[in-house]
Amino acid sequence: MKTLKDLFVHTLQDVYYAEQQIVEALPKMIEKAEANELRNVLKAHLAETQTQVERLEAVFEMIDEEPATEICEGVDGLIEEAEELMDEVDDRSVLDAGIVASGQAVEHYEIARYGTLAAWAAQLGLTEAKDLLEETLEEEKRADRLLSEIAVQNINRQAA
Amino acid sequence: MKTLKDLFVHTLQDVYYAEQQIVEALPKMIEKAEANELRNVLKAHLAETQTQVERLEAVFEMIDEEPATEICEGVDGLIEEAEELMDEVDDRSVLDAGIVASGQAVEHYEIARYGTLAAWAAQLGLTEAKDLLEETLEEEKRADRLLSEIAVQNINRQAA
Repeated sequence: MKTLKDLFVHTLQDVYYAEQQIVEALPKMIEKAEANELRNVLKAHLAETQTQVERLEAVFEMIDEEPATEICEGVDGLIEEAEELMDEVDDRSVLDAGIVASGQAVEHYEIARYGTLAAWAAQLGLTEAKDLLEETLEEEKRADRLLSEIAVQNINRQAA
Repeated sequence: MKTLKDLFVHTLQDVYYAEQQIVEALPKMIEKAEANELRNVLKAHLAETQTQVERLEAVFEMIDEEPATEICEGVDGLIEEAEELMDEVDDRSVLDAGIVASGQAVEHYEIARYGTLAAWAAQLGLTEAKDLLEETLEEEKRADRLLSEIAVQNINRQAA
């Protein structure tokens, strides 16, 4: 990679891979979650994530690139950690608290990446791409806030 | 793991491991960074991270646990991704933009984890531990904001 545009495309491919891994991982988390509000937040976020994949495809099209993935060790590690945790916790209420934590780690990964991509798109003059990336960024931030809210309102208390 | 306390200790060990990996990874990022302001932010954060390790040791002591590490695939993946990126970018100004991005991905991982740990400490009535964890949380958020600021003010423009 030699230019900011190269780095932008590379990171777009990395996030495109990450979103696809998240689409695969979320149903397992939904299945293991016990609290209704947690299942609902995760289900709503799965639907959002599918739209986010389409938004990334639109960004690839705006810059005349074929959508391609780049293996992203960051998200792979986060998902591996989430899956291990699901195997290691016996109590279902405690597991819910763990699922919230894993979900928030993934959300924060995406908040970092979309924040970076939007800033780079702005610098590169890709205004439409920047707007799409910021739309997803706001969704990720909202999903993270919702997870915090249900944790503090109920899930952590149930777990304790 | 059966209780929220077990999960709290497990996650504390995971973050204790993560901070140690970050203490090892930051000097390589500082060495590769070209812009003075980026090197300065990373150096200041390395010093902060060393204090954060000590704060975690204080939290272990508060709950009568020996400080121990738990391998954390999340941070390992993020650092691996950061190191690959440093090998794959040829231009030094573009590399600076990539180092900011990698740094922010790591900061966001820590923001997620310390946010979770502080919420669990509060639920478990560990008020002193919660205060220490929130102190680190605020430092991580500030480091993330500083990286955004230097990126938007100068580094992204240099990279483009």
